[in-house]
Amino acid sequence: MNEFELIAQLTAKLPSNRSVVVGAGDDCAVLDLGVPDHWLLFKTDAIVQGIHFTESDAGERVGHKALARCLSDIAAMAGTPSCALITLGLPPGFDPEFVKAVYAGMGALAQKYQVAIVGGETTTNPERILISIAALGTVARDKCVRRSGAQAGDAIFVTGQLGGSLAGRHLDFEPRLEEARWLAQHYPLHAMIDLSDGLAGDLPHILHASGVGAELLASAIPISPAARARARDRVSEKPPLLAALTDGEDFELLFTLPSREAVTLLDAWRLRFPKTRLSCVGKIVPGSGLTIRNKHGIRPLAAHGYVHFS
Amino acid sequence: MNEFELIAQLTAKLPSNRSVVVGAGDDCAVLDLGVPDHWLLFKTDAIVQGIHFTESDAGERVGHKALARCLSDIAAMAGTPSCALITLGLPPGFDPEFVKAVYAGMGALAQKYQVAIVGGETTTNPERILISIAALGTVARDKCVRRSGAQAGDAIFVTGQLGGSLAGRHLDFEPRLEEARWLAQHYPLHAMIDLSDGLAGDLPHILHASGVGAELLASAIPISPAARARARDRVSEKPPLLAALTDGEDFELLFTLPSREAVTLLDAWRLRFPKTRLSCVGKIVPGSGLTIRNKHGIRPLAAHGYVHFS
Repeated sequence: MNEFELIAQLTAKLPSNRSVVVGAGDDCAVLDLGVPDHWLLFKTDAIVQGIHFTESDAGERVGHKALARCLSDIAAMAGTPSCALITLGLPPGFDPEFVKAVYAGMGALAQKYQVAIVGGETTTNPERILISIAALGTVARDKCVRRSGAQAGDAIFVTGQLGGSLAGRHLDFEPRLEEARWLAQHYPLHAMIDLSDGLAGDLPHILHASGVGAELLASAIPISPAARARARDRVSEKPPLLAALTDGEDFELLFTLPSREAVTLLDAWRLRFPKTRLSCVGKIVPGSGLTIRNKHGIRPLAAHGYVHFS
Repeated sequence: MNEFELIAQLTAKLPSNRSVVVGAGDDCAVLDLGVPDHWLLFKTDAIVQGIHFTESDAGERVGHKALARCLSDIAAMAGTPSCALITLGLPPGFDPEFVKAVYAGMGALAQKYQVAIVGGETTTNPERILISIAALGTVARDKCVRRSGAQAGDAIFVTGQLGGSLAGRHLDFEPRLEEARWLAQHYPLHAMIDLSDGLAGDLPHILHASGVGAELLASAIPISPAARARARDRVSEKPPLLAALTDGEDFELLFTLPSREAVTLLDAWRLRFPKTRLSCVGKIVPGSGLTIRNKHGIRPLAAHGYVHFS
């Protein structure tokens, strides 16, 4: 049994109560605690030294990443983050300067989005630094976007460019809070998720939750310059398209909406966010499963892409 | 610089916003997110294998402890827990049966207090299991009890019996949710905290936050049978009174209220909670600092008690 199978088993029978609008299985938990017209969004996320960051990464960037990952999940439901709690697991001989830098990185990002940091707890984690963030946000009830609303006929969009995040973006990315709120304000989004496991890994979460399938168009996938450079320089063995589909840690928004909205959205986006690409990468289809179309035809795309592209 | 000094430095300049009623430095963060007449309580707490539990402890008890610690913090502000998120750091070769047992222990406690578990995240922590819980609760605005309201002339009370928690109680304790709500409902509590670092360690948090001092009465400290047994059997080198003052992980409530309420409270408590002791252990005095009175007179009591009792 792997981690994911185990968690699927465990989360199937968690205790609930009447405050729960959406429990485990979306970007955030969604709660009705009586805020008029609003729901609360509740999320935790942890990063671990040697896994999500290295000893040589600057503390500011590590702190930024830790908080930005949580904010990205709040963005994925079109919410507004309100506050966060920080848990630091520290080895006995930790470097206080590194910890200060982590706090500085988190603090700068929090300030930028008016997020209050309302507590900092430390515990001992003898072998390595672990940073866990708990975040709380709000969303207007009629603007909350889940994973489960995609419909056959929807167009699939992705912000930014994909792949090669390990070259640096994974430490410096900006959570797409403003973009997500603007989208939900102006367009009838059906489903949204933030990309942490790659397009090929995360789109299936929308498909499963919504009970639909999808067809991607290979030529429409926005491949990042970093993904191309890493392939060219042989830093990565993945061809650029495979990197864009599977690298993970892009923290871009993936969303669907009725295809009749696609053209007006693309035009309005260009005016509102001229520096950030928005790409229509495919369509939602009836049934189930994920396929990708290129000049040779349509083929199934496995969750991590490897089978068909490597 | 130790952990506590560092965190004090870091939390002194955390970003805030207008939703923050109480930030870092109380049992929970207190937030005004627009719930009519109520505040939200927000708390995280982590336990680590080899530090807060051992490999031989049953998973159910470990899960119980992880969640109960968070609920105890919500109790300390007289709140009602609503939901929780679980973060598990797991080594690659983790035992799925242990993880299931952890979830079972948490689930049973959550069910008992109608707490919804709204998500479970896992990450890799290569060397040992780490469990971090984020909890959310609510409290009526006029019933929220902070650490900062103690006044000279208050009587100091503690629930239950103290010391020797390591003999078992630290894994099985019941968070004092019902007791705390009953107290706040019926009595004008001035300050409250849950005992995690021992009476001598935690009472100073109330004193600092309130700008007052306190005098404890040695003969009134409720020493647990476990603390006596551990001293008698030489499992611990601490005399029983020292254990009761400093052992930590009691998770009892420590609170203050006007001393004129003391007698009626003790009478009403005996009827309402006949199985749980309630002890008046001293009084709040003007000034600062913590002293303890025994038959030989009054002496200062250091935060961890060692100087004067060992």
